[in-house]
Amino acid sequence: MTMAPEEHQADVRMRGFARRATVAAAIEWLDAQVRPLPSEPVALSAAAGRVLAASVASAVDVPGFDRAMMDGFAVRAASVAGASVYNPIELPVVGEAFPGRPFSGHVERGQAVKIMTGAPLPSGADAVLPAELAEFSATMLKAHGEVSPRKHVGPTGEDVAAGTVVLPAGRRLRPQDLGLLSSIGVAAVSCVRRPRVSVVVTGSELLAEGSRPHGNQITDANGPMLAALVERDGGQIAGRAIVDDNRDAIRAALLAEADVVLVSGGSSVGQEDHVPTLLAEAGGQLAIHGVAMRPSSPAGMGRLGNRLVFLLPGNPVSCLCAYDFFAGRAIRGLGGQKLAWPYRQQSAKLVRKISSEIGRVDYARVTVADGLATPLAIGGASILSSTTRADGFVIIPADLEGYAAGHDVDVFLYD
Amino acid sequence: MTMAPEEHQADVRMRGFARRATVAAAIEWLDAQVRPLPSEPVALSAAAGRVLAASVASAVDVPGFDRAMMDGFAVRAASVAGASVYNPIELPVVGEAFPGRPFSGHVERGQAVKIMTGAPLPSGADAVLPAELAEFSATMLKAHGEVSPRKHVGPTGEDVAAGTVVLPAGRRLRPQDLGLLSSIGVAAVSCVRRPRVSVVVTGSELLAEGSRPHGNQITDANGPMLAALVERDGGQIAGRAIVDDNRDAIRAALLAEADVVLVSGGSSVGQEDHVPTLLAEAGGQLAIHGVAMRPSSPAGMGRLGNRLVFLLPGNPVSCLCAYDFFAGRAIRGLGGQKLAWPYRQQSAKLVRKISSEIGRVDYARVTVADGLATPLAIGGASILSSTTRADGFVIIPADLEGYAAGHDVDVFLYD
Repeated sequence: MTMAPEEHQADVRMRGFARRATVAAAIEWLDAQVRPLPSEPVALSAAAGRVLAASVASAVDVPGFDRAMMDGFAVRAASVAGASVYNPIELPVVGEAFPGRPFSGHVERGQAVKIMTGAPLPSGADAVLPAELAEFSATMLKAHGEVSPRKHVGPTGEDVAAGTVVLPAGRRLRPQDLGLLSSIGVAAVSCVRRPRVSVVVTGSELLAEGSRPHGNQITDANGPMLAALVERDGGQIAGRAIVDDNRDAIRAALLAEADVVLVSGGSSVGQEDHVPTLLAEAGGQLAIHGVAMRPSSPAGMGRLGNRLVFLLPGNPVSCLCAYDFFAGRAIRGLGGQKLAWPYRQQSAKLVRKISSEIGRVDYARVTVADGLATPLAIGGASILSSTTRADGFVIIPADLEGYAAGHDVDVFLYD
Repeated sequence: MTMAPEEHQADVRMRGFARRATVAAAIEWLDAQVRPLPSEPVALSAAAGRVLAASVASAVDVPGFDRAMMDGFAVRAASVAGASVYNPIELPVVGEAFPGRPFSGHVERGQAVKIMTGAPLPSGADAVLPAELAEFSATMLKAHGEVSPRKHVGPTGEDVAAGTVVLPAGRRLRPQDLGLLSSIGVAAVSCVRRPRVSVVVTGSELLAEGSRPHGNQITDANGPMLAALVERDGGQIAGRAIVDDNRDAIRAALLAEADVVLVSGGSSVGQEDHVPTLLAEAGGQLAIHGVAMRPSSPAGMGRLGNRLVFLLPGNPVSCLCAYDFFAGRAIRGLGGQKLAWPYRQQSAKLVRKISSEIGRVDYARVTVADGLATPLAIGGASILSSTTRADGFVIIPADLEGYAAGHDVDVFLYD
């Protein structure tokens, strides 16, 4: 239908996409590209949420000594054998043992050492008589009960035995993992490097974050949104730029040092959508361009050297959707995290039907209340407020024409 | 049973807790103390995950102009009325309109301006004829279809109308919220201040994070764990210290500038457990000391001036448990976040029974696989590795004696 047949065949500008990839095919291509990045050492104090590149084994026993598990008296069990309220056994208290100030002597048969929970069991003692089983003063105790050997004693290596693998490779470190790693004397761990992500927002009409929109200009929404999404998924922002719809500026941004380049806008088939041709000229490969989904159908992805490049539509809802389907998945994967959606799921009953088309994946924003999901009436890809008014979204898979009212759907919650 | 009656009545050291508060009573006390902190301005670039202290209304329309929603031609609908493939209507193309380079002239009846998605609709035009409905060259188009007035035009204020409240007070900011706020020209928002949390770990036996444990010393696990938990819950670490079991050092740490003081260890009833008496001497109130739960029964909480003070047991599992039941809840509440547990929940069938006692709340670590929850055999409060081997935990409420094998339980997942 065009009068411009001189344009290069691969240039889809102003002609539309000849054939769109399925979402499944796009994800299949993507997953084949994504491997965890190399490791780097990370100090424990900075390791929360990071992913271990290698398993960690303990070089030490924790605790490194037998310890008291109760407040009471370190004794030889034999010293209080047969003791009861009716037959108390008296022992001299020959010292005290605290966690930070152990008893340095030796406990003989017939002696007791006052001991606090966590303190090393003095040599010679083999059990702890709990304080409740005794009447005591500073120098004497009357045992009102007996204990068996090893009773109320936590043995060396009870928490962690030397040589044990305490955490596996691939583990995303939790607060208690940091505690455990600290307890075995680890100061730094080998973690998967965080992907460096360059965010490039194209559009001569765009004002930078913090500017008030005026006249024919609009203030960039995608840059701040993408930066927060990248952080959420464990990436680190290697650079952020708003560039004019100008080939040199976009080319320079594509070639920035990064593991992932996110390009918002300029990716589609409009006359000023330079990114696809620029990518090809720079020696890159645009493996996927155009995806059978709504919104985000102009999304694309490819490689440029070692970089994964994502073409995200400029419309902010499409940008969010394409990020979440593809780019976020890749950033999590490169960082060694799980690929799955990072949203809580909740089942809810649809209040109204959602229509889709066979062959196309839809991303429908819904509100959720009292177990009911209501599709938002305004569904335009340019209406970012539809994603802030929504509580989450429903994905309609390619093999369905939609969901009927009353259908139970899985909602991915934005919160 | 003690021979030391000269000790002050309120001093529970070496005597045990006379009466433990219920978990419900402790939470009731706590929730009455917790109000969101005052607001502070936060730059949009630092606002991800922060909580709005006030609603935000837009001062502007977004977009601030009527815009094209398709690539095509800006026309007056009347100019192409009746056009079809069999009755094409020719119009001269008098200019181009891009988002960043609008058409500055006026579109007369019978004229067309080539227009890209997002570009301001030129004055005089009232609709966009999609490119697919036309055959065109640089200077002429043949319309093969008609459009109604306003077709493919996004009106001024379509995304956000000036005056609209776009986000409510209390909202925890999501990536798309930052995008929306940027689009309305907001550079900074009023957020609830993050609680400043001082972490004080007591114990003369403790080595600092990064040290290898040796002899009778152990390396602090609770400090690194608590720091990561505080960050997770939106607090900011105002200070971290390991202090000797020494009254002056602990007193100084309690009086540090903070909204919340977490004290690990020294909180119980052992002879060197100075914290409860120190808190009283400093003019504080220990509202709860001893809670009917397992682990963490020596936990306590109170106030010291404007500070909320939490006494967390030194045993690391107890420390984690008491933090999560009480301190984390308070930190989230002070920061304006939801009080609820920050863990995903999953239903699973118990493989083995879990025993508890009526009147006591239990926190049982479990592994989860294939919908089955297996309680960990080692349950000691000193075994931190039980929380790193576990996938999550089950809470046994105070009114139950436990759960039978085969029971469906809600597991809170640590990941």
